[in-house]
Amino acid sequence: MIISIRSQASSEERAQLLALLGRITHHQRPITPTTIDGREVIALDGGQLDTQAGLLLRQQGAVERVVPVKTPYKLVSRSFKPEGSSILAGTLSGGNAVTIGRTANGASSPVIIAGPCAVENREQLLLTAKSVKAAGAQVLRGGAFKPRTSPYQFQGLALEGLRLLAEAREMTGLPVITEVMEPGLVETVTEYADILQIGSRNMQNFPLLLAAGRNSQRRPVMLKRGLAATIEEWLLAAEYIVAAGNPNVMLCERGIRSFDPQTRNVLDLSCVPLLHELTHLPVIVDPSHATGRRELVHSMSRASIAAGADGLILEVHSDPNNALCDGRQSIIEEQLRAIVRDTRLMAQMIDGKMDFSYVA
Amino acid sequence: MIISIRSQASSEERAQLLALLGRITHHQRPITPTTIDGREVIALDGGQLDTQAGLLLRQQGAVERVVPVKTPYKLVSRSFKPEGSSILAGTLSGGNAVTIGRTANGASSPVIIAGPCAVENREQLLLTAKSVKAAGAQVLRGGAFKPRTSPYQFQGLALEGLRLLAEAREMTGLPVITEVMEPGLVETVTEYADILQIGSRNMQNFPLLLAAGRNSQRRPVMLKRGLAATIEEWLLAAEYIVAAGNPNVMLCERGIRSFDPQTRNVLDLSCVPLLHELTHLPVIVDPSHATGRRELVHSMSRASIAAGADGLILEVHSDPNNALCDGRQSIIEEQLRAIVRDTRLMAQMIDGKMDFSYVA
Amino acid sequence: MIISIRSQASSEERAQLLALLGRITHHQRPITPTTIDGREVIALDGGQLDTQAGLLLRQQGAVERVVPVKTPYKLVSRSFKPEGSSILAGTLSGGNAVTIGRTANGASSPVIIAGPCAVENREQLLLTAKSVKAAGAQVLRGGAFKPRTSPYQFQGLALEGLRLLAEAREMTGLPVITEVMEPGLVETVTEYADILQIGSRNMQNFPLLLAAGRNSQRRPVMLKRGLAATIEEWLLAAEYIVAAGNPNVMLCERGIRSFDPQTRNVLDLSCVPLLHELTHLPVIVDPSHATGRRELVHSMSRASIAAGADGLILEVHSDPNNALCDGRQSIIEEQLRAIVRDTRLMAQMIDGKMDFSYVA
Amino acid sequence: MIISIRSQASSEERAQLLALLGRITHHQRPITPTTIDGREVIALDGGQLDTQAGLLLRQQGAVERVVPVKTPYKLVSRSFKPEGSSILAGTLSGGNAVTIGRTANGASSPVIIAGPCAVENREQLLLTAKSVKAAGAQVLRGGAFKPRTSPYQFQGLALEGLRLLAEAREMTGLPVITEVMEPGLVETVTEYADILQIGSRNMQNFPLLLAAGRNSQRRPVMLKRGLAATIEEWLLAAEYIVAAGNPNVMLCERGIRSFDPQTRNVLDLSCVPLLHELTHLPVIVDPSHATGRRELVHSMSRASIAAGADGLILEVHSDPNNALCDGRQSIIEEQLRAIVRDTRLMAQMIDGKMDFSYVA
Repeated sequence: MIISIRSQASSEERAQLLALLGRITHHQRPITPTTIDGREVIALDGGQLDTQAGLLLRQQGAVERVVPVKTPYKLVSRSFKPEGSSILAGTLSGGNAVTIGRTANGASSPVIIAGPCAVENREQLLLTAKSVKAAGAQVLRGGAFKPRTSPYQFQGLALEGLRLLAEAREMTGLPVITEVMEPGLVETVTEYADILQIGSRNMQNFPLLLAAGRNSQRRPVMLKRGLAATIEEWLLAAEYIVAAGNPNVMLCERGIRSFDPQTRNVLDLSCVPLLHELTHLPVIVDPSHATGRRELVHSMSRASIAAGADGLILEVHSDPNNALCDGRQSIIEEQLRAIVRDTRLMAQMIDGKMDFSYVA
Repeated sequence: MIISIRSQASSEERAQLLALLGRITHHQRPITPTTIDGREVIALDGGQLDTQAGLLLRQQGAVERVVPVKTPYKLVSRSFKPEGSSILAGTLSGGNAVTIGRTANGASSPVIIAGPCAVENREQLLLTAKSVKAAGAQVLRGGAFKPRTSPYQFQGLALEGLRLLAEAREMTGLPVITEVMEPGLVETVTEYADILQIGSRNMQNFPLLLAAGRNSQRRPVMLKRGLAATIEEWLLAAEYIVAAGNPNVMLCERGIRSFDPQTRNVLDLSCVPLLHELTHLPVIVDPSHATGRRELVHSMSRASIAAGADGLILEVHSDPNNALCDGRQSIIEEQLRAIVRDTRLMAQMIDGKMDFSYVA
Repeated sequence: MIISIRSQASSEERAQLLALLGRITHHQRPITPTTIDGREVIALDGGQLDTQAGLLLRQQGAVERVVPVKTPYKLVSRSFKPEGSSILAGTLSGGNAVTIGRTANGASSPVIIAGPCAVENREQLLLTAKSVKAAGAQVLRGGAFKPRTSPYQFQGLALEGLRLLAEAREMTGLPVITEVMEPGLVETVTEYADILQIGSRNMQNFPLLLAAGRNSQRRPVMLKRGLAATIEEWLLAAEYIVAAGNPNVMLCERGIRSFDPQTRNVLDLSCVPLLHELTHLPVIVDPSHATGRRELVHSMSRASIAAGADGLILEVHSDPNNALCDGRQSIIEEQLRAIVRDTRLMAQMIDGKMDFSYVA
Repeated sequence: MIISIRSQASSEERAQLLALLGRITHHQRPITPTTIDGREVIALDGGQLDTQAGLLLRQQGAVERVVPVKTPYKLVSRSFKPEGSSILAGTLSGGNAVTIGRTANGASSPVIIAGPCAVENREQLLLTAKSVKAAGAQVLRGGAFKPRTSPYQFQGLALEGLRLLAEAREMTGLPVITEVMEPGLVETVTEYADILQIGSRNMQNFPLLLAAGRNSQRRPVMLKRGLAATIEEWLLAAEYIVAAGNPNVMLCERGIRSFDPQTRNVLDLSCVPLLHELTHLPVIVDPSHATGRRELVHSMSRASIAAGADGLILEVHSDPNNALCDGRQSIIEEQLRAIVRDTRLMAQMIDGKMDFSYVA
C-alpha cells in the first residue's frame, strides 16, 4: 500500500506517523518519504500490516489517504500513478534542460543519448561530443568508471574522466550521463553528472541503489536491466531507488543473455509496451549493447521507437576501429544523424500528428 | 560451394555430373538440383571435396560455374544471392496472387497474414476470414492439424479443417496458409493450402523438411524458428528444404524461450536485420505467439515492420475469450485494421517514398 | 482423471464405455486403453467432463474405478501409480533381457547403454559392440537414421544401419536401441530394434509420439528431453505415447540449451529426483550429449547415478578422433569400464546395501 | 603472462620492476603482487606488452621467471598452478581451523557449510548453530546483510547479525561465513567473519571484488556464480580478487537462471569437473539455492560430491516453515546429518580408499 502524507500535516503528526511505521516494519529499514508530483508518499508491503495496525494508520493526522497496490513494486507501479512520469535532466548543472518521458499532453519526443563507451582522453571526448551534438542528440554519454569483465582491461579514467565530461558539457551544452559503480562514489559522480547510470551488472547492487536513491541532488538515475533480470526484479530494483527518496528513475532495456552467439544479447523489445503497462517510469533502449553489432543499430533504433521507447542510448565513436572498448558496436556521426531523423519521424507517426490520409 | 548447371547442358552431361557428385558425397544423400531464379543449382559442403575432385568438377560439361560459399548454409545465403528473394503465393490455387518479400525494385510491401489459431468450425472460420479480409489482410491463416502440448487438448479438425480453409479461400479470394506436421501428409496439405507452415516444434524435423522440399507443387513453405534455435540452425533447416528442390521458403520469427514468465516467449527482433544480412529469404514476424498477450501485439507489429520484416502473421478471432486455443493472444478485427494501417505507413516511411521534408 | 476398466467387463460394456468417452471428448481423438500393470486404463482431461457426464461415467458397467489426477499429465503421474515402473527390454528380439527402472524390491541397478553416435560401417559397429559388451554395458546404442543440423552432414546408413545393429545384437546378445525420426518408419525400426529412441528435436513431434505409442510390439521408447523443454512439456510428451497404448516409456535427460559455450548443453541433474517425485517412469541420463566433452563424462556419469538416475546412455567409439559424428564427446572402452564399475558402487551405496559402519 | 618475483630481490629491484610495470600498463591500475604458495607473483595481460618491453621485463633483477598463460584469467588458471589449492579458514578468529580444497596428498575431504539463510535472532541462530555442529558440519553460514529482491523484505540484522555470528562461533567453535555487499563494509565484516561471501548478484561488482582482494587479513572469499555468468566471466571475477592481493578464493556454483519454473535455478554440475580442469581454486556447491526445493537437496548434495565438489553450502533452519527467508529450501538437522554421512562415503569412494573388491 502507499500512504500519502497531508501537505499541511504538522511536524508532530509526521513524527507520530513515522514512529508508527517504524513499529509496523519492526525498524528493519529507514522510512523515507518520496516526493512524487509534489506529494509526499511512503510505501509499505501490505503483508506487514494487520487489521488493527491498518486502522491505526488511517486514523493518523498526517495521513491523507492509503492506496492499495497489489504488485510487489508499489511506488513505480502504474496502478498507483496512471499518467506517465517525465524527468527533467540538466537544469542543476548548467547544461540544457532535457525532458525524458511523456510530456504533459502525452506526446512523445524521444530523447537521444549518445557518446563513447568510455572517456579515453580529452581529444576523443570533445571530438565525439561535438559530433554527437551536431547529429542532433540531446544528452552526452561517456564512461569514467568502467565495469570490465577482466581486471587487465582498461578500467576508465575515473575522476579525470568526470572532469572531461563536465568540460564537454560546458562546450556543447549537452547534459551528461555516466556510470557510478559504488555507493561511496555516488556523491562525487553527482557533482559532475546530470544523470547517474547504474549498469546491468549492478542492477541488484542494493547498497548502490539505496545510495542513488538518497543522493543529495535527487539526480535522475538510469537503471539498466540486469543480464538475466525478470521485469519484476527490475521494477523492484527501481522501487529501491524511489523508496529511498528519489523519484527520478528511468529504465533502460539493453538486451538479455541468451544462447545465440550471433548477437551480444537479445534485445527484448516486448518489454517496452509491457513496462508502459506496468509502470509510469520512462523506458529507454540501448541497441548498441543489446546487439553488439554496429550494422544492426539503425534498424533496432527504429524498432525501439516503434515499440514505444521514450529514448535511445547509443554508442558513438570518432574512430570505432581504435576504440578502447566496444568499438564493434559503435556507430559514427553520419549513422547517428540518420537515426535521429528516423526517430523523429517515427515518433510523430505514432503520435498521429502527421497527415497520412493520402496513403493508399 | 554451389554448382550452377548450364541451361544447354545435354542430358548426358547432366547425368555425368550427377554421377560424379554422387561419388563425391559417397551416395549418402540424393542429389537434387534446385531452380533458383531460373537457374539450376546444386550445393555441396566444401569439406567433401579434395583438390582433384574440385578440378574434375570444374571440367564437367554441365557445369556453368562453381561459387564458393563459406557459411555452412549455402543456397539460402545472401553471399550466394545478393538480391532478396520474393515468393509468389496463391496462383496455383485460384486465390489472389500475393508476393512475399522484396519486389524487383527493392521496395517493401509487407504482407499481413491473419486468422484464427485453429479452425474450430465452419461458422467461426468464415466469419473470421471475412473479417480478416475486410481489415486488409492478404493471406488467411488457420490450423487444421494442431500441435498441442497435451494429448488431451483439442487437436484440430484435420481434413475437415483443410476443406473449410479451401471454402474460405473461395469465398474471400485470400490464399491460405496452414501447418503440416508429418511427411506423410505433405501432399494432402499441398492440395488444399497455398503455403505450408512448419511449426517451431518441427523446425528440426528433418524428414518433414525434406518432404516439404520435395512437394510436387513447390508450394511455398513458412519455416518458424525453433523454441531455442540459433540463427545458424534455422538457416540450415531452411537449407534442407531448398536443397531438396523447393526454393520458396520464408522464415518466421515467433519468439524464443527465456526466463521471464511475463511474456510467452521473447521476440528476438534483432534477428530480422541480421537475417537480411545473412540470407536472401523473406522474413515474417509472429507477434502473437511471441508475446502471448493481445495488448502487446499492436506495438510489436509496428516494431517488427520498423525492424525490416517482410510481413506479419497474426492470430485473430471473432470471439477471443471463447477460442479453443490461444485466445489470450488473439486480437479482433478492429485491432487488425489499425495494425494494417500502421504497417503500410511504417513501410512507406522506411522506403523513403513519403515526403517528410516539413518535419522540424 | 483416469478410468480403470473392469477386467471382466463384457465386450458390450466396453463398447458402451468407449462410445460414451467418444461423445465426452467430442470424438476429437481416438480413445485407446493402455495396459499398465495388467490393468486397462484410459485417461481423460477433467475439464472435459461436466457433472452429469461424470455420474454417467461412474455408472458404466465397464468402469472399475475413476481416479482423479490433478496434473495435466495423467497416466505417467506418480500420483496415479506410486511405485516406480520398470521396463523389460530385449525379450522379443532374442537379445538378453534387460530390466530398466526399479526392481520389485525398490533396489536400483542402473542400466548402462553404450555405443557409437552413428553406425558408420560393419567393422566399426561390431568392434565397438564387442568393446562395449566387454566393458560391462547391457544395451548397445547406434544411430541408423541421424538427425543432423546440416543437410550436407552424414545422415546415417538407414536400413543398412538397422541390419548391422541386428547383427551386432546377434553377436553380443546386447539388446539395441536406435533412433526413429518419422511415423512412417516406426514399424520398420520396431522390426530391428529393442528400444526406440525419440530424439530431442522430436520431443514434440506429436505424430511420431502417437506412432511410437501405437507400435505393434509395444516396443519400449526412450524419450529424450527437448533442447528447451520444461519438465511439464516433457511429461506431456510421454503422456502422448502412453495414452496411445504403450506404457513402456523411459525419459532421458540430455542437457538443456543455455548461454555458456564451454559445454554443449547444461546437464540438468536436479530433474532426476524431481522426475522421480512427479512420475513413475524410469529416468536415464546422457552425459555425452549434455557436456559434449569426453573428459567430463566420467564425473557426470557418477553424479547422475548419485542423483538417482536409473541408467546412463554413453557415446563410445573405437576411434573417437575419426568418428563421423560427435567424436569430441565419445569415450573409449577403458573409460567405459571405469564408469561401469563406479556406477555399480554408487548404486549399492545409495541402496544402502554395503556396510559402511567402519567409516570414521 | 605471470611474473614471479625473486624472494631475495632488493627493495630497489622491486621498486624498479613495479615502476616498469606501471609504465607498461599505462598506470591504469595499481600493481599489487599476490603471494601464492609463498611466492610473490604479478599477472599481466600479454596484449599489453610489445617485444622490447618483454625483453626489458625479463632483464629485471627482481624477476625470477615469466610464465605465459593463454587464457584471459591468469593467476587462477590451472595452467599456471597445476596442483589444486587449499584454503585454511578459521585460524585467525579462534574458531576451529578448517581446510577447504585438496589436501597435500590430493585426497578430498569435502567441507560442509551449513546454517540459516538469514540470522533472524539470537535464539534461532544459536539453536541452529548447535544443530549444525551436532550434525557434523564444519562451518556455520548465516546472513547479516541480506540482498533482497524487494526493498520491503527483511534486509538482515546488519551489525547485530555479525555479533551474533561471532557468539555462535565462540559457542560451537565453528568458523563462520557471511555475505558482504559493499566495499565500505569489507573491513567490518572481516572483523567478525572467517570467510567473506560475495553473492551471485555481486559477482561482477568490481569495486567489491577489489575490496575483498585487498582486505587487511586476506580473509578467504567465497565467490558465488552470477545468475547468468559464463565460466570465463566467473573466473575473471575471481581473478580480480586474486590480482588485488588475496589468493584465498573458492568458487561456489549455485544454479543458473533458466526457463523452467519447477526449480528456482538450474544446478550446473558439469561446471565442477570443468572448473577443476581450468582452475586450481576449490569448488563448492550450493544445492539449496540451486533447486529452491528442500526435497531435492539430499540427492543433489550427493551428486555434487560425486561430480567432484570440494564442499557443500546448505541452508538449515530449526523451523523452516517460519523462516524469514528461503524456508522452502531449508532442511532440518536430521536431513543434514544424512547428507554429512553420504558426503563422507561418496568422497572416500571417489578417492578409492575403501575396499570394494567384494562388490559383484
